[in-house]
Amino acid sequence: MIKSDLAPRLDYQYSLEAVRLLMKETLLESDELILAMMQHLTLGAGKNLRAMLLLVSAMDEDGFVSQDAVIAGAAVEILHLATLVHDDIIDEAEIRRGNASLQRKFGKKEAVICGDYLFCVAIAMVAEISNRYPEKLKEFTQAMTKICLGELRQFKHNSDTDLSVLNYLKIIAGKTSALFSLAMYSGAIINGNSDKEARFMGRIGHNMGLAFQILDDCADYQSDVEVTKKSVKHDLAEEVITLPLIFAFLKKPELKQQIRKQQLSVVEINEIIAEVVNVGGVSMAHDVAEKYYLKTKKMIDTLPNQHQRLLMGQILGRIWKVEN
Amino acid sequence: MIKSDLAPRLDYQYSLEAVRLLMKETLLESDELILAMMQHLTLGAGKNLRAMLLLVSAMDEDGFVSQDAVIAGAAVEILHLATLVHDDIIDEAEIRRGNASLQRKFGKKEAVICGDYLFCVAIAMVAEISNRYPEKLKEFTQAMTKICLGELRQFKHNSDTDLSVLNYLKIIAGKTSALFSLAMYSGAIINGNSDKEARFMGRIGHNMGLAFQILDDCADYQSDVEVTKKSVKHDLAEEVITLPLIFAFLKKPELKQQIRKQQLSVVEINEIIAEVVNVGGVSMAHDVAEKYYLKTKKMIDTLPNQHQRLLMGQILGRIWKVEN
Repeated sequence: MIKSDLAPRLDYQYSLEAVRLLMKETLLESDELILAMMQHLTLGAGKNLRAMLLLVSAMDEDGFVSQDAVIAGAAVEILHLATLVHDDIIDEAEIRRGNASLQRKFGKKEAVICGDYLFCVAIAMVAEISNRYPEKLKEFTQAMTKICLGELRQFKHNSDTDLSVLNYLKIIAGKTSALFSLAMYSGAIINGNSDKEARFMGRIGHNMGLAFQILDDCADYQSDVEVTKKSVKHDLAEEVITLPLIFAFLKKPELKQQIRKQQLSVVEINEIIAEVVNVGGVSMAHDVAEKYYLKTKKMIDTLPNQHQRLLMGQILGRIWKVEN
Repeated sequence: MIKSDLAPRLDYQYSLEAVRLLMKETLLESDELILAMMQHLTLGAGKNLRAMLLLVSAMDEDGFVSQDAVIAGAAVEILHLATLVHDDIIDEAEIRRGNASLQRKFGKKEAVICGDYLFCVAIAMVAEISNRYPEKLKEFTQAMTKICLGELRQFKHNSDTDLSVLNYLKIIAGKTSALFSLAMYSGAIINGNSDKEARFMGRIGHNMGLAFQILDDCADYQSDVEVTKKSVKHDLAEEVITLPLIFAFLKKPELKQQIRKQQLSVVEINEIIAEVVNVGGVSMAHDVAEKYYLKTKKMIDTLPNQHQRLLMGQILGRIWKVEN
């Protein structure tokens, strides 16, 4: 751990760099037995969006954050990594962050253990600081439970062409918003905010997570499918039903028949993508994302801390621009 | 949760019953989405050995335990259950506690999520009481990490006919002793013991875990294999190398060739079992178990609390008798 080298208060850029270093060092100081998997995981860098949200939420009026925020930021990213490792087993994903997925490279069984190990590492980091925030640990476990249930809900609705908008929103509230919300809530608690203030931050994270995930699901329909040697990387290939498709079904119910076919070819997937765009599925989904984007922006604008308003606005803007 | 119905201090029998009820109620109050899996898990009752050890370790001089011990006892059993659910995926086990394993009945993917969910439930229970034991949460995460590494070590040494006695002991120290030790350590902390006293309890758990696992591994060689419709239930069929076999290899290295063959038939497995017994593999392994049994007994005999001496002695005696 690099904690001992850290100044007690850090500015945002340095704290984000510190999170990345702490994550990397924590993974690489693992037992030899699991080191090859940890090394593989450090190859692909994520955007660290969840850590960013936590750090900004933990920022004081002078724009600085504490060591605890760095540790919590790394914990939330490692927890996210744990969920990705297990998700890739469930989705049989081949690629993750530009490299072979862990389940592909090391096998499903080792990936199960690796995900469990990462959960333990994340909880160990939380344990390191949790005695300074008594009674708050249960927020962490509640968010983790929501993530599990979101993943299970998604799995159960795979190939379900009758998935409702409400159930879609429940899925993404679990699989994405729960962790965004936890990150922002925890940051505020570390910053010494009241529970009420922290819950408000949590709601910003919740709405931002919904906007992010809907935009991410739209992006899957905004270009031709990526074809790698081994697989087609698209929600349709993985039988995951998302908002653009749900809206397209409303406009053109015949599409359901095409989806129900097993093992869609690349040509068929590209045809369906074009159709989803043509009937307005993507643009309708986009409107929903915009609703959550605007809601989030409005909430951010009410924050009294100018550093938080500025940086959170930038993060939201980046999500909107990149995913848009 | 039944906590509100509990008296502040409970006697041993009632507290063990309370653990079982709390476990069952906690699993059955889960979200509808995951309820079928939880219901299936409540069908097969375990021995609750880890909860027993925790309760006895948490026992005061009058033989009573607190509500916190009941919650921690249920948490440690649910954590154990989480590891079993993921183990069964890794070992492709068909049967667990007399019923179909979760991975067999619901599929590997749902079982991954179910194990994660059970981890969350266990940690949520720990979170409920952890603020009364600041700084102790990390013992929990360290034990969890050891269990993951033990499982990984076992998986990596599957079919390894050159597995050393030392590496075998490392495997079982992780997969069995870590949780026995955690249970006894936590019980003592809940009982208000000093960290030094609690660590002594932890070491009793560690040694008892080793004796228990070696006896359990011997038992696999002390009867003919169980053959179910779907599979042969024996370590040999699952390519798990244990102490009786390691000792048999020392006496008769030619046995290694037989093991290396893929997909042993029932007849072949029974022949190898007979050979392992004949060359003294089981009896030598048994001697090692006895060494740990006697070491544990000696440590228990030094405990000043008579209720703990009596009950822990009974638990150890039961392990020795049942597994012997």
